[in-house]
Amino acid sequence: MADPFRVGLLGHGTVGSAFHELLDGRASAIEAEVGRRPELAGVLTRSRGSFDEILEGSDLIVELMGGTEPAREYALRAMGAGRHVVTANKQLLSQFGEELFAAARERGVQLRFEAAVAGVVPAIRVMSETLAAAYIERVHGIVNGTTNFILSEMARTGESYSEALRRAQELGYAEADPSEDVSGKDAAAKMAILARLAFNAPVRLEQVPYEGIERVTVDDIAYAKELGLALKLVGSAERLDGGIAVSVYPAFLYADHPLASVGGAFNAVTVESPAITEITLSGPGAGGPQTASAVLGDVISAMIPPPSLPPPAVEQPIVTDVEFSFYLYLEVADRPGVLAQVAEILGMQGVSIKSVVQKGLGDDARLVMVMHPVLESKFRAAVDLISRLDFVRAEPRLIRVIEEAFEAPA
Amino acid sequence: MADPFRVGLLGHGTVGSAFHELLDGRASAIEAEVGRRPELAGVLTRSRGSFDEILEGSDLIVELMGGTEPAREYALRAMGAGRHVVTANKQLLSQFGEELFAAARERGVQLRFEAAVAGVVPAIRVMSETLAAAYIERVHGIVNGTTNFILSEMARTGESYSEALRRAQELGYAEADPSEDVSGKDAAAKMAILARLAFNAPVRLEQVPYEGIERVTVDDIAYAKELGLALKLVGSAERLDGGIAVSVYPAFLYADHPLASVGGAFNAVTVESPAITEITLSGPGAGGPQTASAVLGDVISAMIPPPSLPPPAVEQPIVTDVEFSFYLYLEVADRPGVLAQVAEILGMQGVSIKSVVQKGLGDDARLVMVMHPVLESKFRAAVDLISRLDFVRAEPRLIRVIEEAFEAPA
Repeated sequence: MADPFRVGLLGHGTVGSAFHELLDGRASAIEAEVGRRPELAGVLTRSRGSFDEILEGSDLIVELMGGTEPAREYALRAMGAGRHVVTANKQLLSQFGEELFAAARERGVQLRFEAAVAGVVPAIRVMSETLAAAYIERVHGIVNGTTNFILSEMARTGESYSEALRRAQELGYAEADPSEDVSGKDAAAKMAILARLAFNAPVRLEQVPYEGIERVTVDDIAYAKELGLALKLVGSAERLDGGIAVSVYPAFLYADHPLASVGGAFNAVTVESPAITEITLSGPGAGGPQTASAVLGDVISAMIPPPSLPPPAVEQPIVTDVEFSFYLYLEVADRPGVLAQVAEILGMQGVSIKSVVQKGLGDDARLVMVMHPVLESKFRAAVDLISRLDFVRAEPRLIRVIEEAFEAPA
Repeated sequence: MADPFRVGLLGHGTVGSAFHELLDGRASAIEAEVGRRPELAGVLTRSRGSFDEILEGSDLIVELMGGTEPAREYALRAMGAGRHVVTANKQLLSQFGEELFAAARERGVQLRFEAAVAGVVPAIRVMSETLAAAYIERVHGIVNGTTNFILSEMARTGESYSEALRRAQELGYAEADPSEDVSGKDAAAKMAILARLAFNAPVRLEQVPYEGIERVTVDDIAYAKELGLALKLVGSAERLDGGIAVSVYPAFLYADHPLASVGGAFNAVTVESPAITEITLSGPGAGGPQTASAVLGDVISAMIPPPSLPPPAVEQPIVTDVEFSFYLYLEVADRPGVLAQVAEILGMQGVSIKSVVQKGLGDDARLVMVMHPVLESKFRAAVDLISRLDFVRAEPRLIRVIEEAFEAPA
């Protein structure tokens, strides 16, 4: 049996403890997949643990302390000692990226940082791998979930910036001191990192001008709504004739822009390149478990080079009769008792009606119903019975309905 | 200097010739990045070339013939001879995936297939790498651009299925014989591949039931619009208590579902997992250059393991004065000549007005303008002058406007 892969963890806050938990929970699955079991070698917090001891006992260091010092010192020392480093630290990379990359290159170790930008949205990997050969012209990103939540709430409810901010704080989407987020500075650090990857140019945080959302008014949002625009805090990085430009600012987006529909605390990144047109990646931009998941993906990539093949398959039963919400469209004669008979048959088959719309249409009527989730076989049996009723004028039509899986808090 | 990396190309249709062109155009950039220059070793078409000769002279075979034979035979022979294979062939993988994966594993060669599903949308890589450790519960995909274009057109114009199909054919989004696409079969092959990766279970095309869009009516679309739903051809793959279920069907999506806003010929894939909540990836699902770009990304990954680090940075000028479209919001006294003076100042600074809305408000008026793209410095100079006019009642507000970069044909 191969030795365990020992992971030293620096920082045990929200993301750190989520990573700890996720690592323990997925260790066996990872061992089955890559042949080595990842194990926590030690944890450094402000109050306990010794960096030197953890380093000594680790194959890889996960840095989730945040801030620039001592994170920078620890990352450099870890790489200097031949250890891979995985970090979620945007401040560190946007201010000392070149120094860290050089140190990693010199020692031939890996430095991975998917979680530093847009949480679990795989912007770093896609830019470094899928688009390795692409000439990237422009990157637009919604890379701060707090501000996107606030702007989404302002648009949804019509409330002011300060009201929406208060709600974001109550729900845990904004910190007690939200200035890093609402000023655009957090987004600027992430755009510096994305620009570095997109254009292969050194871009530091202090070179990225940023404007925040503090001055966005209810009138601005109302104007946007009236014209079908969305107001978002956008980070942009683009090539120009004279060089590159990177900045963060509130912007109106036309409705067909792929970032326009990104709501709530989600993040998204759109990459434009002549060959690919554009790719957009979106998902939760923060949250302990989500960020921890991105960190763990990096740890696994550091354990073994990502394989080109899926692992050998394991047979699993294929289920063909599945629960769905269904929409049912019936053309029926417009006479009393029709809805009652249809409802009775549905009820006998255990199909529960969620909503009904009936519309008269001369002698005929249209009955449009949406059901609560039900096994497809049961629903089809009911529809088969219904189709034989004498008042049904055309073959019933049924279409599945898919609700959003992710329920954002109201 | 390192030897060139020789690429044998099977097939020279739309994607094959686009790949040929892209490879030639990007060879120097790739050489600079990975240290070896990729070169075309030979091309096999129906009318010319010898597979044996091409195989002999290649380090890697790119299979873009489509169909199952002789693509399968060639892929197996190439891997048997120790060559990596990159393919965009969904039929091949959805019917003979396990055989091909086993052959690659046995010989220790790579088999990459990002372009087989959703074109340049990096669904394969993200599922294999970013989500390598995630327990994936469900995948929803819009994985056929032809049908998404037709449904989007029906919703946009109110026209019938057959009218929208005809337009899709005229614009090159649908083939003369569209049955593979509109029946859902093409999407079923792609969902079989995604399900294989998501659940690590062997799923073959013939195990995926599919319904197409041929019977979708104007009434269905109208109903969807009325309720704020989108009607899409959806592929779904999910874990259930008794096993897994994979299928393709037209479905209504609630407006907040990440696939609901995917329009035109775009593709998108949403992956749900407890740890990550969900990730959505979207982009052009087809097109020669786009698919070729995905193929080239695979070729580069086969040349060298994707690095964890960006290449050393090269300084580039950072431009801080950039052209933008601006929105300008002015509160002004409601009296004659105001608009004329504002317009004159803008004109003197070379700022061209795209649209204006003026609204009276008691003694005051609001003037909302959107400009054509202009250098920020010029615009700010104009606004500075405007802010000093005596009829301006509050500090002017300006917000940038971003239009959609990708212009889908109407």
